[in-house]
Amino acid sequence: MSVETIVSQLAKSAKNAAMELACCSTADKNQALKAIAAKLTDKSEYIKTQNARDLEEARKNGLSDAMIDRLTVGDDTIAAMAAGLEEVAGLQDPVGSSDGTWIRPNGLEVSRVRIPLGVIGIIYESRPNVTIDAAGLCLKSGNAVILRGGSEAIHSNRALAECIAEGLSETPIPKTAIQVVSVTDRDVVNLLLKQDEEIDLIIPRGGESLIRFVVQNSKIPVLKHYKGVCHVYVDLTADVRMAGDISFNAKVQRPGVCNAMETLLVHKETISSFLPEITRMADAGVEIRGCEQLCQILPSAITASEEDWYAEYQDLICAVKIVDDIDAAMAHIARYGSKHTEAIVTSDYGCAERFLKEVDSSVVLVNASTRFNDGGQLGLGAEMGISTSKLHAFGPMGLKELTTTKFVVRGSGQVRV
Amino acid sequence: MSVETIVSQLAKSAKNAAMELACCSTADKNQALKAIAAKLTDKSEYIKTQNARDLEEARKNGLSDAMIDRLTVGDDTIAAMAAGLEEVAGLQDPVGSSDGTWIRPNGLEVSRVRIPLGVIGIIYESRPNVTIDAAGLCLKSGNAVILRGGSEAIHSNRALAECIAEGLSETPIPKTAIQVVSVTDRDVVNLLLKQDEEIDLIIPRGGESLIRFVVQNSKIPVLKHYKGVCHVYVDLTADVRMAGDISFNAKVQRPGVCNAMETLLVHKETISSFLPEITRMADAGVEIRGCEQLCQILPSAITASEEDWYAEYQDLICAVKIVDDIDAAMAHIARYGSKHTEAIVTSDYGCAERFLKEVDSSVVLVNASTRFNDGGQLGLGAEMGISTSKLHAFGPMGLKELTTTKFVVRGSGQVRV
Repeated sequence: MSVETIVSQLAKSAKNAAMELACCSTADKNQALKAIAAKLTDKSEYIKTQNARDLEEARKNGLSDAMIDRLTVGDDTIAAMAAGLEEVAGLQDPVGSSDGTWIRPNGLEVSRVRIPLGVIGIIYESRPNVTIDAAGLCLKSGNAVILRGGSEAIHSNRALAECIAEGLSETPIPKTAIQVVSVTDRDVVNLLLKQDEEIDLIIPRGGESLIRFVVQNSKIPVLKHYKGVCHVYVDLTADVRMAGDISFNAKVQRPGVCNAMETLLVHKETISSFLPEITRMADAGVEIRGCEQLCQILPSAITASEEDWYAEYQDLICAVKIVDDIDAAMAHIARYGSKHTEAIVTSDYGCAERFLKEVDSSVVLVNASTRFNDGGQLGLGAEMGISTSKLHAFGPMGLKELTTTKFVVRGSGQVRV
Repeated sequence: MSVETIVSQLAKSAKNAAMELACCSTADKNQALKAIAAKLTDKSEYIKTQNARDLEEARKNGLSDAMIDRLTVGDDTIAAMAAGLEEVAGLQDPVGSSDGTWIRPNGLEVSRVRIPLGVIGIIYESRPNVTIDAAGLCLKSGNAVILRGGSEAIHSNRALAECIAEGLSETPIPKTAIQVVSVTDRDVVNLLLKQDEEIDLIIPRGGESLIRFVVQNSKIPVLKHYKGVCHVYVDLTADVRMAGDISFNAKVQRPGVCNAMETLLVHKETISSFLPEITRMADAGVEIRGCEQLCQILPSAITASEEDWYAEYQDLICAVKIVDDIDAAMAHIARYGSKHTEAIVTSDYGCAERFLKEVDSSVVLVNASTRFNDGGQLGLGAEMGISTSKLHAFGPMGLKELTTTKFVVRGSGQVRV
């Protein structure tokens, strides 16, 4: 069978499954989530054996240690995937809930009711756990899903697909509600991106180049974020110790993730009292790349170049700039930021409210770490990723963001006059 | 100046204006809406003179009467545009309102706050009133807008642009918040669709070919509907007179619009008592194109072809099909429908609820006319159009649908553990 035929059949069967799945009960969906979780545990030895084949191949191909780390599926990964599915089973089902009901003067009752989007295509790299995590969120939100992982994880993903299929077969959920693409042909991605009659949404997860490729080639709407260049601004009236703790947490707690701080902005009149907090970061192994003014008072800092202000290091490196005031801080963020996450540390009511209102990012915080931009941390439950584009969803995407609303109208014979 | 430069400058100045506009007060925006409305009234003679130039050109080019009708701007059109702006000024401003606030266990206060999308590009044909209607909705929702009307309406649109600019100049709203493209170069549309760094959303309004062109060529998310093939299903237990009134209203009250009924489905056991209602439509000038079964009992009906079930007539023509039951009706809708608007007329609770739940359309109704799929009629206020794709907005798009949400987090020093 040609790749074209395979992809077209995948898309068509996903669309049919989506129609059925949209009407499945929450209980049936939860049963399926738990059945898949059980299969993961039952077949953990098999999953690890298949993962070992990918790892062997990866070593042969000279993949980086970081890549191999992301690819590795151990007992803890399997336990985390199973626990994730159980957690999703416990979350509230958005489908069928209403965003409001009102009565029109003519007596019509109008409700906005949540419905699944339909078919979601996930295109991702390396981490095999995305296969299970994404499948679980799509299933619970009533969407059929087509999962296309990287060829470097093909044996792991095929093993996970078997767990999914065996789990679903014990439930009323159609088997094609979750499909893992099992061919590694490079054309698959391009072909998937053209199935705009069947697929309603594409979510790419991976590096910036993968995401840009998907955006450039998709005929289907894409939810994505390119990068997280997150800022903390330490204002004139900041509690310096609080500002130090927040900056330290935002930079050091987990530097490799998208909601870690990359650039620290400090008010010019706060910098002298705040300097020990920057030294504290440096002592924890953070390389400080400062503006010229900072380098004069902190000679150990490296002079930042223009590129540093755009950089998403995802590492123990921090760009630091001294700014004149909140306007300069917000102007810097508007110019170099990525609309991901920005925090201000301040004791001034007016500055706090201005920052919250004027900064154009998916999550804006006062006196809290940027690391809170996360579906779980913000109370949305598990998340599918973080969107930095504004259409449909802006910020972390939980179950609700994987649905849309239709209007349900109950009448008693009304006609339009 | 090259067209490339013109379009790029338009997009850049729109983006700058959007940043300012996002922070303008509701009072300032309302003042601007009223100032533009006043200019329309003041300059009505000038607008009509400019419109006359377009009409003369249109006649010379042999445009159809329907096209010329859509292009014509009379005193009533101008009054309606001004009244529309006043109405939008009276609507609630979605910007800054919250979709919910909650407290996390660690004390963080999380809110989802409505913000504008940014820059919206509107690409439309013929009707010059779209220039004013779309500008008003974008302004009130805090979005900068670039308006690209058809070359056939260029003089009218330039005159309207002058009213907008003069109106805005009396207010604190940046003048580039509303920009009307004043060059008619055909490349403009293609170039606009590539400005994905500056423009956040494209809304095409016009015929299906314009919309398909935009979707195929846009690098920017598009909100659109291709067509409205709306159905009314008259169930076994329908009140026949109510079903007749609803069908008549859905077909005859305004046949040229997208929420008019195109196909009528009738339960096989209801058809004999319902036949007089079909005759009533025929008597009102509706051409009936029936399935074979219907043509046997209503010899005046024309036999429908397969294409008729897909057709959006936008005219006094109605396709009529006799179906075995609600399942057959819903299967027909799933196959031939456009996800726009579908209604059932029934007295049976179970059938009503099944139809509302299972039919995958932006508006589903029980015992009411399809003509209610309209932002005003459903209580959203004025609308920008009706979306039949599910991302971001599904159904009529009011002011709220021209916004998105960001997360606003208020803390007291929280860090992630």
